[in-house]
Amino acid sequence: MTSSETNSMSARAIAKAVASGTLSAQEVTEIWLERIATIDPALRAFIHHDPEQARALAAVASKGPLAGVPFGIKDVIETGDMPTQYGSAAYLGWKPCRDAPVVHFARQAGAVIMGKTVSTEFATAAPGATVNPFDAARTPGGSSSGTAAALGAGLILMGLGTQTSGSTIRPAAYCGVAAMKPSPKLIETFGVKPLSQTLDVVGPMARDIRDLALLVSVLMRRPELAPDILAPEGELPLATTGLLLPVHDPVADFAPLERAASILGSVTPQAVPDWFEALGPAQDEVFAWEAAASLSTDRDLHWDRLRPETHLFMERQRKGTFALWQAGMTARDEALRNLDALFGANEFLLTPSAPGEAPLGHAKTGPATYNIRWTLLGCPSVTIPAGFGPAGLPVGVQLVGRPGRDAAVLRQAAAIEDRLRSAGIEARPQIA
Amino acid sequence: MTSSETNSMSARAIAKAVASGTLSAQEVTEIWLERIATIDPALRAFIHHDPEQARALAAVASKGPLAGVPFGIKDVIETGDMPTQYGSAAYLGWKPCRDAPVVHFARQAGAVIMGKTVSTEFATAAPGATVNPFDAARTPGGSSSGTAAALGAGLILMGLGTQTSGSTIRPAAYCGVAAMKPSPKLIETFGVKPLSQTLDVVGPMARDIRDLALLVSVLMRRPELAPDILAPEGELPLATTGLLLPVHDPVADFAPLERAASILGSVTPQAVPDWFEALGPAQDEVFAWEAAASLSTDRDLHWDRLRPETHLFMERQRKGTFALWQAGMTARDEALRNLDALFGANEFLLTPSAPGEAPLGHAKTGPATYNIRWTLLGCPSVTIPAGFGPAGLPVGVQLVGRPGRDAAVLRQAAAIEDRLRSAGIEARPQIA
Repeated sequence: MTSSETNSMSARAIAKAVASGTLSAQEVTEIWLERIATIDPALRAFIHHDPEQARALAAVASKGPLAGVPFGIKDVIETGDMPTQYGSAAYLGWKPCRDAPVVHFARQAGAVIMGKTVSTEFATAAPGATVNPFDAARTPGGSSSGTAAALGAGLILMGLGTQTSGSTIRPAAYCGVAAMKPSPKLIETFGVKPLSQTLDVVGPMARDIRDLALLVSVLMRRPELAPDILAPEGELPLATTGLLLPVHDPVADFAPLERAASILGSVTPQAVPDWFEALGPAQDEVFAWEAAASLSTDRDLHWDRLRPETHLFMERQRKGTFALWQAGMTARDEALRNLDALFGANEFLLTPSAPGEAPLGHAKTGPATYNIRWTLLGCPSVTIPAGFGPAGLPVGVQLVGRPGRDAAVLRQAAAIEDRLRSAGIEARPQIA
Repeated sequence: MTSSETNSMSARAIAKAVASGTLSAQEVTEIWLERIATIDPALRAFIHHDPEQARALAAVASKGPLAGVPFGIKDVIETGDMPTQYGSAAYLGWKPCRDAPVVHFARQAGAVIMGKTVSTEFATAAPGATVNPFDAARTPGGSSSGTAAALGAGLILMGLGTQTSGSTIRPAAYCGVAAMKPSPKLIETFGVKPLSQTLDVVGPMARDIRDLALLVSVLMRRPELAPDILAPEGELPLATTGLLLPVHDPVADFAPLERAASILGSVTPQAVPDWFEALGPAQDEVFAWEAAASLSTDRDLHWDRLRPETHLFMERQRKGTFALWQAGMTARDEALRNLDALFGANEFLLTPSAPGEAPLGHAKTGPATYNIRWTLLGCPSVTIPAGFGPAGLPVGVQLVGRPGRDAAVLRQAAAIEDRLRSAGIEARPQIA
């Protein structure tokens, strides 16, 4: 098995080959270790990567639905055998006493954890060193920068991010990979450094939708979400999908979304209810009040070791109040009672994953404009690679479903991905 | 200031005296250290207590709304300067890297943490060594056994428990103290070893309702809940309250609840809707599926070091399924849409805190029959000390409000406590 042969294999094909003994986890790991050694010095997707440790993990990873799959864990998710620094100098060298359940589930399923991937500080504003795998002059997006970039560059085949505003969907779109923001509570968040009890979710990431479904099935402990069952290869039916375009966004480029919609054909514009915009500020207030609690020890005890962007973020939180939090939660609850007005006759909505391609520069990780409302509402969403934008950078489209309909969203995303690929529209990861 | 003088002081009076300089935190601490030294060897409420550490903390605790208040932290809540063993031999000597936000808030407010209090293993079934302060032959209740017993014996004046089924309300009632199960999300749970994302809450405990309100105001970051504002001494109005008696419970003794209701006068029986009973099994299924994830690393990696009761608990979880979890969540959501049928014309409901007095023996910590449905619904509840039962052990009554109405529940609980005390009904902590 050569590197170029494995390059074209999906994670699910590799896992099947490893579990059946036709490929060994060690062989797979060596190929990806070489790739990491070649590419990561410039990409800087990993904050912790130890080849010997990866080899030791590969030696015991011959079984399970993710057998031998090269895997990355965002640095804000706790690991019992690797440092967990939450993207912050305040936690240099910290080792938790155990794996987060999501890490444990991935390991039990046979994944080979290649290391910890770069996060912005505490998954908020201050970027890490990672660059975009398609253009080193651009951000990979954040806060799950490292997992998205490592996937986009083919350094891993699956990984974990997190999302509180748009920290999974946006970087995945910028790096040309697939990712899911699940409904709340469906994937255990214990061991993820929290920002907001209401908003935080673990964000699974992969190279395509079926690999993503496989990972989600493991993390949710739901074998019926495995791609062979959920979305077998072949013509999958397309359920009714509305096209949700925001009322006004002068900076956004909706051409990739409109291109995808025109390929799909049956996607019809859906009117945006007038209360939808206000969910943005509502998400911000819920975030502010809750993060002021979850980050309180860091703010009070580690201030001098935190980054200037984190200081600004924390100053914003100080302006949050309980009354504004309550108003934000009330706006969310009212919106959830009126979801029919948002979805119309559609089972799903198709919206931008991000306002456009990854922006130039590394000081910021891009806006979460098209993510924050779904995070607040708890609507599951998936970003589907949807080709390239005018600057040659990958773009994604975001499929959104009603809360709890995660399986249906994944199935529809696979159907959409199939149709886009048939039309030559994809964002194949940047593999050397 | 002598020990007998401080004995009769509330936590809020002590905090005011310390903050104003008429009493020092060190003086207060020495009195409570002596009490712990005398009583705790038999009570066994503390799993970690170091007098020198408490003295050092007292030296810097002269300011804030909880200035100098002797305080206890349940062992499942993380502390940066004291061991956190989650009630389990699997974590002997473990030290987290920081305080949970609730611990941090209590410290910032001036509380003097006297130590970590006994929890059942992982806040589930296997009891610790603590006995009931009113009768050493009986359980103090659980899983927040140590905080409840330490408060009941006067070894602390405030403390933290947690609740997933009935782990705060029940032990508080058994030990003659006040406690609150808040609405979800109002008190940050980061740093509490999780069992269930949906059900877990931090449970503040104190000796009376006004001290409880002071603690809640600190933990919720809501100064308007401080007792001077929320429930000033004097005649507080009683809002409409229904008496909710379960349909059938052959083992329960409702006499204390009926006595309290007759003193209050305006409490009228409220019919129990037919769907109410089914919320018990629903809570159990939500708990099972979520705890199977949150405890997965302990189950898979620490099995041999866990207690037999924990093994049984974990075996129960294995029977949980996603479909049963979904059904439980659906039952909850339907009940929340029909709360009017449960509350009737009442703003509050009065129900038992527990089926009766603390049972004899230490193998179990008592049933959570009257707590699990409120935990599932996210209704705030407060247990109010309500005198003694037939065996001479303390009993409590539980006041329940609609989700989010925590302030109103505390105010009404203060009004009820005042009326019970005027009638000579209270459960004064067992202070030597």
